[in-house]
Amino acid sequence: MSNAKALPLLERSEAPVAAAPCCPPLSERPFTAEEAERTARMFKALGDPVRLRLFSAVASHEGGEACVCDISDVGVSQPTVSHHLKKLKEAGLLTSERRGTWVYYRVEPSVLAAMGQLLAVR
Amino acid sequence: MSNAKALPLLERSEAPVAAAPCCPPLSERPFTAEEAERTARMFKALGDPVRLRLFSAVASHEGGEACVCDISDVGVSQPTVSHHLKKLKEAGLLTSERRGTWVYYRVEPSVLAAMGQLLAVR
Repeated sequence: MSNAKALPLLERSEAPVAAAPCCPPLSERPFTAEEAERTARMFKALGDPVRLRLFSAVASHEGGEACVCDISDVGVSQPTVSHHLKKLKEAGLLTSERRGTWVYYRVEPSVLAAMGQLLAVR
Repeated sequence: MSNAKALPLLERSEAPVAAAPCCPPLSERPFTAEEAERTARMFKALGDPVRLRLFSAVASHEGGEACVCDISDVGVSQPTVSHHLKKLKEAGLLTSERRGTWVYYRVEPSVLAAMGQLLAVR
């Protein structure tokens, strides 16, 4: 998809969870209940082996994005793949964009970076 | 517990999951099923709000360790606290050590660092 950048956005998922300004590193101070609720959602999204494989397939795909047709080889049915991709989107880890027939998924680098910061050791 | 280092280890939890040599960043190449199984376990352990609060309470406590008596203020019963701490231990995120009456929990920095590496963006 070398012409990806030239194509207009026809469909965009809901805004990703604003992870970056949410929470300090886990080791800085005890999390409040609200902070824990927001943050646990992201970790939970990666806490399933099939979701993790799909996420890794998108993240490592050429150009940092993948069509669902590129990443379905994880041993589960197409509806299950779609279900898991939806969960990853809801957690703010992926965004999606429809181009013609296909929906393309892309990692949200700022959310990944924010999750990495949460794990920073004092 | 300023004399913590002088006390012998009376009880040690099972060895933490060897996260560091397990897996490359999620964005390097698609994870295999086995890599995803191992890695999802760690993310899942942090994918619960109560576990995340307990983990944050241990990680941010003075000296990087905490007695269960220090961290029970998360609105759930003591058996539930113990259950969640056990899950965090099984995922390799915490280690524990009994000293006299109390069990002390400590974060496993190498596992945290390995999780952070998984989230590194290309």
